[in-house]
Amino acid sequence: MSMNTFGHLFRVTTWGESHGPALGATVDGCPPGVVLDEAMLQHWLDRRKPGQNKYTTQRQEPDQVKILSGMFEGQTTGTPIQLMIENTDQRSKDYGDIAEKFRPGHADITYWQKYGIRDYRGGGRSSARETAARVAAGGIAREAIKALVPGVEIKGYMTQIGPHKIDRARFDWDQIEQNPFWSPDATAAGEWATYLDGLRKSGNSVGAVVEVVARGVPAGLGAPIYGKLDTDLAAAMMSINAVKGVEIGEGMNAACLTGEDNADEIFMGNDGQPVYSSNHAGGILGGISSGQDLVVRFAVKPTSSILKTRQTITKSGTAAEIITKGRHDPCVGIRAVPVGEAMMACVVLDHLLLHRGQIGANRGKIG
Amino acid sequence: MSMNTFGHLFRVTTWGESHGPALGATVDGCPPGVVLDEAMLQHWLDRRKPGQNKYTTQRQEPDQVKILSGMFEGQTTGTPIQLMIENTDQRSKDYGDIAEKFRPGHADITYWQKYGIRDYRGGGRSSARETAARVAAGGIAREAIKALVPGVEIKGYMTQIGPHKIDRARFDWDQIEQNPFWSPDATAAGEWATYLDGLRKSGNSVGAVVEVVARGVPAGLGAPIYGKLDTDLAAAMMSINAVKGVEIGEGMNAACLTGEDNADEIFMGNDGQPVYSSNHAGGILGGISSGQDLVVRFAVKPTSSILKTRQTITKSGTAAEIITKGRHDPCVGIRAVPVGEAMMACVVLDHLLLHRGQIGANRGKIG
Amino acid sequence: MSMNTFGHLFRVTTWGESHGPALGATVDGCPPGVVLDEAMLQHWLDRRKPGQNKYTTQRQEPDQVKILSGMFEGQTTGTPIQLMIENTDQRSKDYGDIAEKFRPGHADITYWQKYGIRDYRGGGRSSARETAARVAAGGIAREAIKALVPGVEIKGYMTQIGPHKIDRARFDWDQIEQNPFWSPDATAAGEWATYLDGLRKSGNSVGAVVEVVARGVPAGLGAPIYGKLDTDLAAAMMSINAVKGVEIGEGMNAACLTGEDNADEIFMGNDGQPVYSSNHAGGILGGISSGQDLVVRFAVKPTSSILKTRQTITKSGTAAEIITKGRHDPCVGIRAVPVGEAMMACVVLDHLLLHRGQIGANRGKIG
Amino acid sequence: MSMNTFGHLFRVTTWGESHGPALGATVDGCPPGVVLDEAMLQHWLDRRKPGQNKYTTQRQEPDQVKILSGMFEGQTTGTPIQLMIENTDQRSKDYGDIAEKFRPGHADITYWQKYGIRDYRGGGRSSARETAARVAAGGIAREAIKALVPGVEIKGYMTQIGPHKIDRARFDWDQIEQNPFWSPDATAAGEWATYLDGLRKSGNSVGAVVEVVARGVPAGLGAPIYGKLDTDLAAAMMSINAVKGVEIGEGMNAACLTGEDNADEIFMGNDGQPVYSSNHAGGILGGISSGQDLVVRFAVKPTSSILKTRQTITKSGTAAEIITKGRHDPCVGIRAVPVGEAMMACVVLDHLLLHRGQIGANRGKIG
Repeated sequence: MSMNTFGHLFRVTTWGESHGPALGATVDGCPPGVVLDEAMLQHWLDRRKPGQNKYTTQRQEPDQVKILSGMFEGQTTGTPIQLMIENTDQRSKDYGDIAEKFRPGHADITYWQKYGIRDYRGGGRSSARETAARVAAGGIAREAIKALVPGVEIKGYMTQIGPHKIDRARFDWDQIEQNPFWSPDATAAGEWATYLDGLRKSGNSVGAVVEVVARGVPAGLGAPIYGKLDTDLAAAMMSINAVKGVEIGEGMNAACLTGEDNADEIFMGNDGQPVYSSNHAGGILGGISSGQDLVVRFAVKPTSSILKTRQTITKSGTAAEIITKGRHDPCVGIRAVPVGEAMMACVVLDHLLLHRGQIGANRGKIG
Repeated sequence: MSMNTFGHLFRVTTWGESHGPALGATVDGCPPGVVLDEAMLQHWLDRRKPGQNKYTTQRQEPDQVKILSGMFEGQTTGTPIQLMIENTDQRSKDYGDIAEKFRPGHADITYWQKYGIRDYRGGGRSSARETAARVAAGGIAREAIKALVPGVEIKGYMTQIGPHKIDRARFDWDQIEQNPFWSPDATAAGEWATYLDGLRKSGNSVGAVVEVVARGVPAGLGAPIYGKLDTDLAAAMMSINAVKGVEIGEGMNAACLTGEDNADEIFMGNDGQPVYSSNHAGGILGGISSGQDLVVRFAVKPTSSILKTRQTITKSGTAAEIITKGRHDPCVGIRAVPVGEAMMACVVLDHLLLHRGQIGANRGKIG
Repeated sequence: MSMNTFGHLFRVTTWGESHGPALGATVDGCPPGVVLDEAMLQHWLDRRKPGQNKYTTQRQEPDQVKILSGMFEGQTTGTPIQLMIENTDQRSKDYGDIAEKFRPGHADITYWQKYGIRDYRGGGRSSARETAARVAAGGIAREAIKALVPGVEIKGYMTQIGPHKIDRARFDWDQIEQNPFWSPDATAAGEWATYLDGLRKSGNSVGAVVEVVARGVPAGLGAPIYGKLDTDLAAAMMSINAVKGVEIGEGMNAACLTGEDNADEIFMGNDGQPVYSSNHAGGILGGISSGQDLVVRFAVKPTSSILKTRQTITKSGTAAEIITKGRHDPCVGIRAVPVGEAMMACVVLDHLLLHRGQIGANRGKIG
Repeated sequence: MSMNTFGHLFRVTTWGESHGPALGATVDGCPPGVVLDEAMLQHWLDRRKPGQNKYTTQRQEPDQVKILSGMFEGQTTGTPIQLMIENTDQRSKDYGDIAEKFRPGHADITYWQKYGIRDYRGGGRSSARETAARVAAGGIAREAIKALVPGVEIKGYMTQIGPHKIDRARFDWDQIEQNPFWSPDATAAGEWATYLDGLRKSGNSVGAVVEVVARGVPAGLGAPIYGKLDTDLAAAMMSINAVKGVEIGEGMNAACLTGEDNADEIFMGNDGQPVYSSNHAGGILGGISSGQDLVVRFAVKPTSSILKTRQTITKSGTAAEIITKGRHDPCVGIRAVPVGEAMMACVVLDHLLLHRGQIGANRGKIG
């Protein structure tokens, strides 16, 4: 028995296993009247699709999404939207090793300890394939946001692979779509290519950092104390496979700052809205959006399915060596970029909807 | 309208403002038959209490907790436990500046933008005083855990203040209670004292990193995909005032590791339970506890109420300078240690209860 | 471990036992800016207060409500509102019989079976005193509704005591406040007085039917399929102590009607809103309000604490006779009227808030 | 935006419209290790299937259920189970009238008022076809209950069609499967046949009462105050299409009883469990099961799609007459029997799971 739903009013329940007949998402709470079709969702799924270049798994999956409900004559009706992605690449193979041995660093052992039964084919429910359903749901969230608040832009990119970080001085929004790593720094992208080539050849893998920014999000989103915007973002990102750390704005580095340095000073902008001298806060104060860019960062650990020999045990408790053959990502963090974007879109929409339900007529104006 | 409850089955709703008549927590879902009294909760509250040394705010609050319901003849009954802490230090003072001007880095402006009304006295609902209620609720969680699973130990400590980190080689569990910073490293504690003296005199503040460890937590806790143990821990810690980053195990540093390095190799222990060569995972794989120590770390930003002059605006939108007088913490992170422990206790209990409801008879055995 | 909260966005958690220090409600989700004070809530509590006439229990409780949080300068702030009612009538008495024997028809035995511990004083958590907290919370809901949608009126009254029903032909709104039974039929009120006098003298009790109407509720409230307005109303009313049946509109009698008779025919009113020829539906179609009066009815069983001797068993399983002395209501249904009103107010507010979060700009207009 | 999920730990989300590509249920929280296959679910769906006799709609739907996830090697894995039923009978027809005119007594008008868009084909989301998904989910619940607590039996039957009630003196469990009405009274079944023949010929419809009993449910289920077993059952049954009243045990008739009559006296049974002299309570005291049979009853209004001419309005607000041609049930209550059983199964399982999570070691024993 588990809990497979996220969101307060925009509620996404994902379902399905890596090698079952299909996987998908049940999306409840999308407002009525949003113009939508399968192609709009496919656009985002295609960005996440494996096998697009040599830096991601060579598994071939079309990841074609179908909308089974919740639409009428090209618009959402306000009823649940069922998204289904059929698994086509279910080729029979020998999973014997993984069925009996636990991969170090993998959920193999804990799923077994929790449930006493486990679909070991391709990781079953713990497979990162589950994130395809999130990306599709995120596509719905994007269209719904567009219908509610024009001008919101959500963008993810990589800032680090292994020890190699981007140089913020070279940050270029237009670079992001120009390289296989969604890197805003072309030089870093080149270094990463070389670095990953070496790792891939040696059968190893590595971690990464992804940053997601949402621009144009209005002030006032977030429900303190326990539905804070940053609380929900932290949960959303930490729920992504292999994520081990989440940061808002300055993140862990906030420990190093003084109060004087950390204060984002406030001024009035020409449009009568507050503007800030800096964005250490990542756009969130007291759990509520300030109108600045929302900035979230998360670290993805290296995939545990590697060609290196490691020590482990079997289900019967005997010592064993394990080496995982197959079509795995040398840096699974790359494919986490569209997933992080999708989670951001879902959280922002959810709080837009909550905010509509929350605010009195007397919402605070400044000036 | 906001959401002030956390937890799935062990549900804690906090209420109250910094300078209202009282604050507290409504605790629903505590199992019946847990032996409990006010002194057990007071023990933890006293650790968080302000004014205990010169490194925390000099506000004097006894923070005396009362249990108003849910108990009979010294045991919990399974009905809601109401905890109330009366605010005694409500001395009348001039809040004029804060009522009109927004402190940079503070929730002043976003609460105003969201609600259009705000109890500005001492921060109102956004005050860190709210965390007293969490600490009291955490005390209940500790006793309930004890009744369910003997031997669980939850401990928090500081690992960094400003740029000064502890040296892991000097880590000493017994040091933690011996200094005003809950530092496991006596040398670091000495450095921090000197550093904070300087900051306090200059009216500045600084951030910090807190680490919380839970030992003896059984394998199998956590509800993938969206009620993962790490997801819930991330949300719990990020919901604490001023927290900007949360890490599990290696945290952000996971980006730098290779798959080979990150793999915690598995062996059989003498007691027939799996043991691991390392704990990069922080005790959680695929969102489920492995039986290793749970390790969570979070960064607390510097308090925004400082004696330094900063630029800001007023409610009417005019430019202004602000300087916040009062009894504030130079490093609010210190008092976050017992809060982090309390959140850990609540999350662990919650998942212990969920797990009891979740597992079939055929739970996976190893060996 | 139990669940003591109701509502989706307007969330009320009640807490407290009959003879503990206090009881109350934690109200989360009230919009900011609602003008409120304790006297507004006391008004409704006074209607429910015991000991007002010889037809209700003679227990003397002032039921004075205090607001501990969530208010600033006479308005709600959008943060949780804590309501506390201290128990003053905790006179020491001999509960020995009830501590050991189970009253037939009472929750004594099932609380014991579920929790293994039970505050038997005055029924503990299962006491109807818990409904005082609901009435106070309902008072907040009434003020919030007023702030959101002017003109909503919520009114409860009795339609049956024992076998004696009101005559709908004599229905008079102005009568309701004129007699101790909230009867809209003065003749029935007279019959009930005579009937209850006899019951009270013989130490017996009897059931009743309460009807609650909400007028002026806009069309479009209700969240199909499982948050339907009638679903939530059914749950709200069934959660009241001693309620055994709930009806919407025609209720159980709907079984007897043909489709032709049951159809509430639709016409256009002079104000451009639909009007209906009848209201068999009780104002709800497909779980969504139609704009007609919401009509809910519920049956309250007779109190099980009576002066009649009944057969039962003790905790140790031995056969025993029981007779319950004390200050009990001959018809507890009478005091359920303000409780039913409060639940209606909470549900209507909750769905008003949900609806604000739910609807797109293209909400359906007619004409 | 709507809410399409029910249950606390066993959570069922239904999705789909009458004439979309498919409908189904996402079932989250089923324990791992339950033996299950599609045939087990199909058994219950076949009971609900339309077109089986002349008393139900002649629409031909195979209602073939597919399991898309959550299973491995014949057992549930504890991950979400996706159930899909493809709509095969989507024949193109003229819905013009229903698209423009609102059927009196139908959700047509309120869906329009709420959402501003509506899939009018066959009722869209408001169609009773949605209940097929519930019946399939109920089949899972039955198997899970079986795995947790042997000997629970859940059975529904009709007790009234129009003004014609069964005679309790003729109640025969074995009759229930012997007639097209699930009547426990063969004589009543005969009367109903004649009565419905007349109604069908005249193009009219009629209401009904369904009773559902659960035997063998252990004492202690139910979560007071707002997750009471009867509260959840009332919500579950009221959420079924066309239900207007719900009763537990004596139901509305409880109003007529005295406390003396209503008390189910308690004795010790030969097996050391309490036994009761009667079951006015319907197996629930204070919201908690007593171990007696759970007895729930609900009234289903007549279908509003009839061949009789009624007055209505169009979307543009002009007066119109309406007559609904098509393949409709003269007594939709008949097909509600398996739906009521399914809801009972889901609620019982949900509370079995909650109870496992709730109870301390010291659960109350008697004797």
